[in-house]
Amino acid sequence: MQILLVSIQKPIITYMKILARVIDTITQQKKRHPNMQFHLNGFHPGDPRFSDPQDAVVPPPVKRPLPQEVDVLIVGCGPAGLNLAAQLAQFGTISVAIVDQKDDRLLVGQADGIACRTVEMFQAYGFADQIIQEAYQVNEAAFWKPDADKPNLITRSSKVQDVADDLSEMPHLIINQARVHDEFLKVMRQSPIKLEPHYQRKLLGLEVDPDGSTEYPVTVKLERMVNFSQYTQEIETVKAKYVVGCDGARSSVRTSIGKELVGDALNQAWGVMDVLLNTDFPDIRLKSLIHSNNEGNMLIIPREGGYMVRIYIELDKLKEGERVARDQMTSEVLVAAANRILQPYTIDVKEVAWWSVYEIGQRITTAFDDSTPDRAARVFLAGDACHTHSPKAGQGLNTSVMDTWNLGWKLAHVLTGLASEEILQTYSAERREYGQALIDFDREFSRMFSSKPKSAENPDGVDPAEFQRYFQLFGEYTAGVSIQYRPSIMVGKGDNQHLATGLTLGKRFHSAPVVRLADAKPMQLGHCHTANGAYRVYAFAGKTTPFSDDCDVKALCDYLAESANSPLKLYTPEGADADSVIDLRAVFQQHHHQVNTADVPEVLAPRKGKYGLRDQEKVFCADNRPASSGGGKNIYDMRGINREKGCIVIVRPDQYVADVLPLDDYAGLSAFFKQVLVSA
Amino acid sequence: MQILLVSIQKPIITYMKILARVIDTITQQKKRHPNMQFHLNGFHPGDPRFSDPQDAVVPPPVKRPLPQEVDVLIVGCGPAGLNLAAQLAQFGTISVAIVDQKDDRLLVGQADGIACRTVEMFQAYGFADQIIQEAYQVNEAAFWKPDADKPNLITRSSKVQDVADDLSEMPHLIINQARVHDEFLKVMRQSPIKLEPHYQRKLLGLEVDPDGSTEYPVTVKLERMVNFSQYTQEIETVKAKYVVGCDGARSSVRTSIGKELVGDALNQAWGVMDVLLNTDFPDIRLKSLIHSNNEGNMLIIPREGGYMVRIYIELDKLKEGERVARDQMTSEVLVAAANRILQPYTIDVKEVAWWSVYEIGQRITTAFDDSTPDRAARVFLAGDACHTHSPKAGQGLNTSVMDTWNLGWKLAHVLTGLASEEILQTYSAERREYGQALIDFDREFSRMFSSKPKSAENPDGVDPAEFQRYFQLFGEYTAGVSIQYRPSIMVGKGDNQHLATGLTLGKRFHSAPVVRLADAKPMQLGHCHTANGAYRVYAFAGKTTPFSDDCDVKALCDYLAESANSPLKLYTPEGADADSVIDLRAVFQQHHHQVNTADVPEVLAPRKGKYGLRDQEKVFCADNRPASSGGGKNIYDMRGINREKGCIVIVRPDQYVADVLPLDDYAGLSAFFKQVLVSA
Repeated sequence: MQILLVSIQKPIITYMKILARVIDTITQQKKRHPNMQFHLNGFHPGDPRFSDPQDAVVPPPVKRPLPQEVDVLIVGCGPAGLNLAAQLAQFGTISVAIVDQKDDRLLVGQADGIACRTVEMFQAYGFADQIIQEAYQVNEAAFWKPDADKPNLITRSSKVQDVADDLSEMPHLIINQARVHDEFLKVMRQSPIKLEPHYQRKLLGLEVDPDGSTEYPVTVKLERMVNFSQYTQEIETVKAKYVVGCDGARSSVRTSIGKELVGDALNQAWGVMDVLLNTDFPDIRLKSLIHSNNEGNMLIIPREGGYMVRIYIELDKLKEGERVARDQMTSEVLVAAANRILQPYTIDVKEVAWWSVYEIGQRITTAFDDSTPDRAARVFLAGDACHTHSPKAGQGLNTSVMDTWNLGWKLAHVLTGLASEEILQTYSAERREYGQALIDFDREFSRMFSSKPKSAENPDGVDPAEFQRYFQLFGEYTAGVSIQYRPSIMVGKGDNQHLATGLTLGKRFHSAPVVRLADAKPMQLGHCHTANGAYRVYAFAGKTTPFSDDCDVKALCDYLAESANSPLKLYTPEGADADSVIDLRAVFQQHHHQVNTADVPEVLAPRKGKYGLRDQEKVFCADNRPASSGGGKNIYDMRGINREKGCIVIVRPDQYVADVLPLDDYAGLSAFFKQVLVSA
Repeated sequence: MQILLVSIQKPIITYMKILARVIDTITQQKKRHPNMQFHLNGFHPGDPRFSDPQDAVVPPPVKRPLPQEVDVLIVGCGPAGLNLAAQLAQFGTISVAIVDQKDDRLLVGQADGIACRTVEMFQAYGFADQIIQEAYQVNEAAFWKPDADKPNLITRSSKVQDVADDLSEMPHLIINQARVHDEFLKVMRQSPIKLEPHYQRKLLGLEVDPDGSTEYPVTVKLERMVNFSQYTQEIETVKAKYVVGCDGARSSVRTSIGKELVGDALNQAWGVMDVLLNTDFPDIRLKSLIHSNNEGNMLIIPREGGYMVRIYIELDKLKEGERVARDQMTSEVLVAAANRILQPYTIDVKEVAWWSVYEIGQRITTAFDDSTPDRAARVFLAGDACHTHSPKAGQGLNTSVMDTWNLGWKLAHVLTGLASEEILQTYSAERREYGQALIDFDREFSRMFSSKPKSAENPDGVDPAEFQRYFQLFGEYTAGVSIQYRPSIMVGKGDNQHLATGLTLGKRFHSAPVVRLADAKPMQLGHCHTANGAYRVYAFAGKTTPFSDDCDVKALCDYLAESANSPLKLYTPEGADADSVIDLRAVFQQHHHQVNTADVPEVLAPRKGKYGLRDQEKVFCADNRPASSGGGKNIYDMRGINREKGCIVIVRPDQYVADVLPLDDYAGLSAFFKQVLVSA
């Protein structure tokens, strides 16, 4: 997200400032909020579960020098950088450093919309529940337009469901971006490498060894800023195997590798503010998209805690006399504009927690990495360093984390020797196309949103009904589940897509309910897929009796256990857990009482860990319970899986469907993994 | 739970010992476990989300002296004590100290079964999600009996659903008791009074001022133990308004007030162990109740993390030659017994994380408080200090926390001046009856479990089918939702029970799905009910148009807003939030699109906090969405609410239904609150 900061407030609200404010208001906040209502007595950063806001703001971690050599140096502690750090920290054997210019973690963020797809990714890290508990949940959107009879007043045209049925098992959320950062930081801290960011580090420049034969070919120079006022220059040099620039729209890493953002600005200025308010506007707790006749347009996004609201206001539609120079903009001007747009309703703002003004500009970088025809990439870009767009479709944070979700496991596979460097080429190919598509979408969405409503005076305006149709049509897009990567070494061509019509190749594995055999637990199949860098191979059984002699899953298991070509044997390193590279799981269509756990072959209940304990959580059945018992949703029906023949579904470590194969296509299975893994 | 500790292991595993073990095995645990599989390489205490088990074991908090005066002194940091501390800490104005003899928080607990009802209570504190994520979920129970043809071998008689449909919205869980303690400690730490336990304090004695006119009538003497080996006697004296003994079966507080446990022991000895194992027993990840023909009986309880299992083994059925003196019991003897019972299956135990031997003894205290005909109670007992029973029905922890869940808000209401001391009498009345009922249940359950299976040789044995029927019949009991408090000043007589047949007076408010009006959020109505000490008044509307002139809820709102007799006006202290004592909420049967938020009267969207912000989360509609969209469950149908007339349901701060009244019974509403609250 590109933010043009012109407010008289200091653009970066520092730790000290927030702290002062927090101390100021300690006495006003008495009770804690287990029901997750908060910000009643004013906005406070940090975990709202603390009664005393001061306790929620932890001091920065102990300062320490940067390591001299790391496998991966990440520049920037935004969502893209933290997600990458959290992913790489899982492996234990990869050394990582993450740096940021700021003097501490973010406390107040500008992004707030969390798409369903992003919550699915949070699930893989284990913190979806925590975020869902705390966030505002977008369930409906309200559309408002000029009243036909009194066009100066707005009237509701409709309310629509925000997330279509079975679009995702996860909700669409709104939460302060900083709280998402906190969860990533917790994952990093709890990881085997106990990773903490190095703050107060400014990138001075980087050089890539043109030879390429060195172990740590990227040399990075950073300046250490001891504190804001008292500046002491101290230079640190870090040598890295890979550097990833997650350092935002003004990325220094991007500049260092000679790339730039290209695109156009629409010259539309918007004001944004987080406010605590009272109002008679009836949809204040719904996402509301408001087109007024002559006063401009406005978007209301309710925030977490039950009281705060984010308001986006179109500024270019301010009337001539009311328009002020941008550098004289105040939050009062924004509030006044909102009140004009909302007529006949009014807002009574009690506190402005944050506000800013920005111009929409859709731009994309000329390349996502520094690779040349002669040399593989050593430096990658991700997040706002690659693409900027308007914030209203809520795609900034979501696209940024998906960039590094795509990159992280690939880097990990290369660094741990599981894969060759070749797989890294898919990062730029997959993400650049999506970045471009996003910008096209955003341009159209912004244009429609900024247009005047269609009327007799404005025949070229946008029909509110058309805008609403567009909104609904693109629900999949804004939910983040429309991404479809093209065929490549890690996405098949789709020859067998008919065996699982609802698990589209190149799209994310769309979860559905199942019952786990060993403990009869109803759960989402997709939630097996944690952020541990392993491929999943789901064997959906055909109609045969489970584990009988003619059972197709049993035959597959025999192959995987015995054949010299078994990918399980070829690619699992000596001493590693059997499921650490390729995690085989089976799903049967029979009721779970018709499958005997005693029949489960060892390849589906592998021995793991120092004791060789059997892992009993690999076999599932369709949820055949009646709807009255919480069942009624059958994964075979929901995902169009061929009941007669079943199929194999290969899913990448980032949860995207890599291929669908016939259950007996052992050669196809082997061929797929031969392209993406290196023999152990 | 009464545990007779006879193992050669040290009975209380200390912090140091655990830590040493943790350090020992750091290198064996590489990856973190977002999918909540853990203990693969051995059992470790603490939060399994940490990759390094050492980080999960935080050092004890800073040592500090006890305060000289407190409102409530809690003796004992078990589940009963911590729950009480967590509840009282919510108010900010009540001073609390909680002491324990131990030198730090519990790391390994003996209790592990968490009843559905207890998880509902966790929800009120805001940590149900965290516990659910980490725990084993009991979905089915398997029953095993001697094979008819080969009676020395066991065979499965059936699998049954463990928690009946709509018994609770929460699951039945198994988790290390210490993790539940951790969540209570977190709630205490995040509370307005930032409460931490005072460890290493031994109760020497207490005295209650017979006069009763003193502000702090209970004088408590405690001995401070500087550490285990190097003992320095230091006496602290604390004066308290109330003392609550949550100090277990050998309670010193109970002795101090001259009460004792009475009852009988059945002379049945059981061994219990937590083990990591491999086995060919097919139901190892199900709760399994196993009756063997001649080798005794056994109970398998799968544990959290996917690998650990708790096994209870009947010891008195060991054959003469195999029986060993109890003080020579070893875990090897238990494992051997398990292997005999399980024939033809075997277990291969890789690690014994904990084991013990206990005798079943069902006993109950002669009184739950120190009240006399002349003097109100100043000292209360709760948890194992009041009642002990066998662990197998999983009732120990659950009953203990429900004791203090009953007591906590009552103490808080008295201490904050909301209620008179009279309400404290209901604690003993309500909990002693339940304690006795529990013991009766436990005796029968234990008898049946310990009996031989019925056969030609044992015509007086228990028919396995009968045992299974008993198990299912008492599902409500073991889920903790059968508790029904008798009519009293705080439970009505049931004259209007027909208006809400599924919300039984004296039983816990049985939650059901609704849609919140303001933000269209599908949610559980019961989850509004947080642990903040407020009564809930739910106005279920009749068939009239919502907020129309003849709307019965609107009439009630007008009464509550305007009448001088309005309980909202009478009992809410000056300056307190409007919903802090009585929290009014309304439910309509219409689709939420047919209710206009603009019509909601102020009493249902009260102004709160320093800004007077409107709370928009008080109005709900039945979930009228189709089942395909996640709806299909209507609260009016599920809870038998009269659609024509609606009703008022008053719910106590501990979530028990206090009364059901006609919607226009304003006098009845006022009369109820007159009995339990004191005018502000």
